[in-house]
Amino acid sequence: MVSNSQPDIDIGEIHKFLKNVFNIKTVKYDPDQVIDNCNCVFLSKNHGEFQEETSKLVDKALEKKANIKFIDLSADFRLKDISLYETWYHFKHTNADLLQKAVYGLPEVNYQKIKEAFFIANPGCYPTCTILSVAPLFVNNFVDANAGIIVDAISGVSGAGKKINGRNLAMDIESNIKAYKIGIHPHTPEIKQELEFLMQGKIKSVLLVPHVASFKYGMITTTYLNLSKKLSQDEILERYHDFYKEKPFIRIYKKGEYPEIQNVEGTNFCDIGIQLHEKTNTCIVIGCIDNVIKGAVGQAIQNMNIMFGLNETEGLPFADVLSKNLS
Amino acid sequence: MVSNSQPDIDIGEIHKFLKNVFNIKTVKYDPDQVIDNCNCVFLSKNHGEFQEETSKLVDKALEKKANIKFIDLSADFRLKDISLYETWYHFKHTNADLLQKAVYGLPEVNYQKIKEAFFIANPGCYPTCTILSVAPLFVNNFVDANAGIIVDAISGVSGAGKKINGRNLAMDIESNIKAYKIGIHPHTPEIKQELEFLMQGKIKSVLLVPHVASFKYGMITTTYLNLSKKLSQDEILERYHDFYKEKPFIRIYKKGEYPEIQNVEGTNFCDIGIQLHEKTNTCIVIGCIDNVIKGAVGQAIQNMNIMFGLNETEGLPFADVLSKNLS
Amino acid sequence: MVSNSQPDIDIGEIHKFLKNVFNIKTVKYDPDQVIDNCNCVFLSKNHGEFQEETSKLVDKALEKKANIKFIDLSADFRLKDISLYETWYHFKHTNADLLQKAVYGLPEVNYQKIKEAFFIANPGCYPTCTILSVAPLFVNNFVDANAGIIVDAISGVSGAGKKINGRNLAMDIESNIKAYKIGIHPHTPEIKQELEFLMQGKIKSVLLVPHVASFKYGMITTTYLNLSKKLSQDEILERYHDFYKEKPFIRIYKKGEYPEIQNVEGTNFCDIGIQLHEKTNTCIVIGCIDNVIKGAVGQAIQNMNIMFGLNETEGLPFADVLSKNLS
Amino acid sequence: MVSNSQPDIDIGEIHKFLKNVFNIKTVKYDPDQVIDNCNCVFLSKNHGEFQEETSKLVDKALEKKANIKFIDLSADFRLKDISLYETWYHFKHTNADLLQKAVYGLPEVNYQKIKEAFFIANPGCYPTCTILSVAPLFVNNFVDANAGIIVDAISGVSGAGKKINGRNLAMDIESNIKAYKIGIHPHTPEIKQELEFLMQGKIKSVLLVPHVASFKYGMITTTYLNLSKKLSQDEILERYHDFYKEKPFIRIYKKGEYPEIQNVEGTNFCDIGIQLHEKTNTCIVIGCIDNVIKGAVGQAIQNMNIMFGLNETEGLPFADVLSKNLS
Repeated sequence: MVSNSQPDIDIGEIHKFLKNVFNIKTVKYDPDQVIDNCNCVFLSKNHGEFQEETSKLVDKALEKKANIKFIDLSADFRLKDISLYETWYHFKHTNADLLQKAVYGLPEVNYQKIKEAFFIANPGCYPTCTILSVAPLFVNNFVDANAGIIVDAISGVSGAGKKINGRNLAMDIESNIKAYKIGIHPHTPEIKQELEFLMQGKIKSVLLVPHVASFKYGMITTTYLNLSKKLSQDEILERYHDFYKEKPFIRIYKKGEYPEIQNVEGTNFCDIGIQLHEKTNTCIVIGCIDNVIKGAVGQAIQNMNIMFGLNETEGLPFADVLSKNLS
Repeated sequence: MVSNSQPDIDIGEIHKFLKNVFNIKTVKYDPDQVIDNCNCVFLSKNHGEFQEETSKLVDKALEKKANIKFIDLSADFRLKDISLYETWYHFKHTNADLLQKAVYGLPEVNYQKIKEAFFIANPGCYPTCTILSVAPLFVNNFVDANAGIIVDAISGVSGAGKKINGRNLAMDIESNIKAYKIGIHPHTPEIKQELEFLMQGKIKSVLLVPHVASFKYGMITTTYLNLSKKLSQDEILERYHDFYKEKPFIRIYKKGEYPEIQNVEGTNFCDIGIQLHEKTNTCIVIGCIDNVIKGAVGQAIQNMNIMFGLNETEGLPFADVLSKNLS
Repeated sequence: MVSNSQPDIDIGEIHKFLKNVFNIKTVKYDPDQVIDNCNCVFLSKNHGEFQEETSKLVDKALEKKANIKFIDLSADFRLKDISLYETWYHFKHTNADLLQKAVYGLPEVNYQKIKEAFFIANPGCYPTCTILSVAPLFVNNFVDANAGIIVDAISGVSGAGKKINGRNLAMDIESNIKAYKIGIHPHTPEIKQELEFLMQGKIKSVLLVPHVASFKYGMITTTYLNLSKKLSQDEILERYHDFYKEKPFIRIYKKGEYPEIQNVEGTNFCDIGIQLHEKTNTCIVIGCIDNVIKGAVGQAIQNMNIMFGLNETEGLPFADVLSKNLS
Repeated sequence: MVSNSQPDIDIGEIHKFLKNVFNIKTVKYDPDQVIDNCNCVFLSKNHGEFQEETSKLVDKALEKKANIKFIDLSADFRLKDISLYETWYHFKHTNADLLQKAVYGLPEVNYQKIKEAFFIANPGCYPTCTILSVAPLFVNNFVDANAGIIVDAISGVSGAGKKINGRNLAMDIESNIKAYKIGIHPHTPEIKQELEFLMQGKIKSVLLVPHVASFKYGMITTTYLNLSKKLSQDEILERYHDFYKEKPFIRIYKKGEYPEIQNVEGTNFCDIGIQLHEKTNTCIVIGCIDNVIKGAVGQAIQNMNIMFGLNETEGLPFADVLSKNLS
């Protein structure tokens, strides 16, 4: 594990819950060492700050013809339209080429591409939860794309990570709920891009309204979609089950039941519940994930598994049982 | 204080936080005693279960020509259209007459009527937060009423009260968030009725999606409204300030700032923040109240104050300061 | 899985977080079926209510010469002195014989006996955390047993399980802390019995003061012990490391660092921190476990592993890594 | 209100929950302005950082013969033994004179002195809760002072204030409990000093073990005391009621009932519950306060009220009712 700020330390000292588990020490970043010793590199830096280094590292790997795969957990290679980085992330992106080559690592919709990829842009947490929970509606062209899509989302505090600032203090989170970055959260264009890809058409607008609440892990998204035609809840559920057949990490709830954060916490599941509002022909979709697992590191492992031809559940909670369920 | 299940007990024994504060014992319900000894009666029973008794009590008061006022915290006299009780509350309402006489006790929009009322239907928590946060938009006819109105709401566990059942257990609330009664919450027609009254027109539909989260007191509503014409955020804010001039319990946030539950907890405030989404001409309004105070008992006291010609802040947090601010 | 109250239901319907994980249906209790089809039986009923049935089941197994092992998660076979059941649990115990045969399933101190046992009394959560955190002091006779031992403990709400009553409501737990059963918690004699066994002598008294706080999983015990002689913190820590050599689930903190619930949540670890108070020659020991895992089901699995000759980490979090660490 | 870091700002901008409540702007610190314009000065700086300025301000007031009173919420003038500041607070105190003149502002035990004081050292939160909960035992010489006194305490996160550092992050507090500063918390000598004053004798040792838990406001202390003679719980409770007669903010619980944080949150109450452990003649005392109110600012207001000859409940929650209860 690479850490320039805390090199040569047991990871159990940095993350106390890993004390006595792994005998691994952090090392300083050395691109040559990385290339020569790794089969799979997980990149996990703040958005923008490592984009150029990542490009150099990938170039070096290609040069050396290293048999190496990359999974980038930052947002730096998720958006295909390079201009969006300036608008939404406030930095100038310099590698249009790698942007095109990077595969968006959402395994339940991009399995084949991930299998063949050497560079994965691991999705953000809000996009993972939103896209997975509505994908079957877009694939089947059930959504009126001229109406706006509203995503009202609530995340636990782990979403903000361990950055030390005045917004992550216990005093401001405990027993509180607040909205933030209404309409300007940088995960917005990521959701729009992938849903447009799924429906093979243009969406007028995605409006993401994130809230942070007083719990540690987990995320719930409530998405409001105008349907393009009359559909029964049963028809919709059927399409969901078709689309997610043999997907071990997707769980679809039956009519009248909805996902809860406590059902997914600590797992790589994405739980989905659907409610039709007939009066306005609106489909309300509730999605729940653990924002740190399916919304980040769990999905990264799932991507690695697929890239290396392993069972996709490997190393993730319930791995054995879930893989048996499939066969 | 009347309690048939726990009569003749110090209220400090029932509500431990009131220990040694009030020397009041509970008594059994006796309508004649109530009429003969009270100036103001607060009724606080579960929806439906006391509707007929309330009618009898009011009749008795009218008969005796008692100078007495009523504030009903249940939903039993909030809806003008009697048929809605069967659809939304699953009981048959029997007193169309009192329904018409009852005044909807939302002081910031109904002040004059409350002043002259003898029977107040005290609003529900979701309606209080939603209606107050969007009223100026409806009064000014800024809303496209043919588009659906979406209210995405999150409430603390106190919303469910102290009923002992499997849904209110700490094990199912702690660190969890869940949606419930999507599209079928009985506060829905109450919101619709009052907004239609404010805009003096018909609204196609109100869709309320409530969630319960892991905190005790407070509520946040995020309302999504299609505007009927192009408006700037400044114009909208100006109308809000006009509409709520001299209203001590309304606090409007400036551009880019939004209410948080921690700012209203323990108070009778309703905090409001507005965000325009220009691409879709959607107005996103965040409202925050303490669901138990402004959403229930605090508002009941405010109503009593108004009915009895007192300063409306009397007996509520910051009473003295807030009343001075007004003069 | 046996459930008389909810038979013939997918366990994923009862425990939603297990949805789509295990394809197992609950069945009604049938002792013969249990004996004929199981190698290992986990008994998990409320204290007292199944004691006689357990006795019958074990007798039947012995009769049939079934090759079957039992792990009882209730307190019914933990105490060797049969009279204690009436004092502490308020029921009359009827099987003195099985009480003697039952092995107290605390693997880090009873490994050999567990290996050879056919019936395990799985320890309570407070005893697990307390005994493990102080065992090396008692084994080495470092404790003045004539002075009282004080255990001040805080548990998450999962300790109370999912019983539906007025004490487990979110309204009474959220943002609250309260002490309960001071000096009369039935885990008290269990702690005393095992510590006396470890020191091979009599302890004057164990005083357990449990609190319940506003979190779901986890437990912290702060134990205050008068030492029988002057010792340095380093000497004590050395004895701890000796005693717990090659114990994968014990993690000892270095001087000045203490366990936290967040470091053990979701794991089978027992984390231990020690602080000497020289002025009074008191040793303060902080223990942390996940009350539901190491304090209940995780430990039951660990016991099963040992009884069946498996690696003791099998099926528990970090199983592979921890077993490799040992070799 | 003085703030050098954020001068000339509405306090409603700094503390959002006070928005629109007080029309007060912060000003830069100017000692002359303070002396010329104030009757009562509340000092609330971090321990040590303002001690010299405080001395200068008091000197200036004496010089000008200003009729002005001071309430210092820091620890800078609480300890009579000047050498303790170096040991426990790591700074060198320079004003032995003012240390002697300062009155320890615990109204329930120091009422007369506070009435006549011009400078109050407002107590710390742990000392307030501990001392009030055990004072009657020390005043009556019921405690064996040669045995150590153990205070096991749990505080909400507000105890740490809004300092921005890695220990107050929501990620490290939410759903967690941790002990800190075991035996070295600087409130320890404050507790010892005042208890020795109450019993007019020496105490061997006070051992304070603080924990921080996942809630915002409130504190619970569990104190373990060896009694100096056999006493019944009834006798002890009687002495408590005697000692705290006519004290509006003390509430004593009856046998078998204990305080809970939710009963005192948002109030100036100190709730006390007692449990005798006969086997070891130990008295376990549970105290609960709101750490920010009775443990800080509420107590400061109570002290001001007493110094200025007002009713001591003035401006505090339930002020009117509590003052009526007394007469």
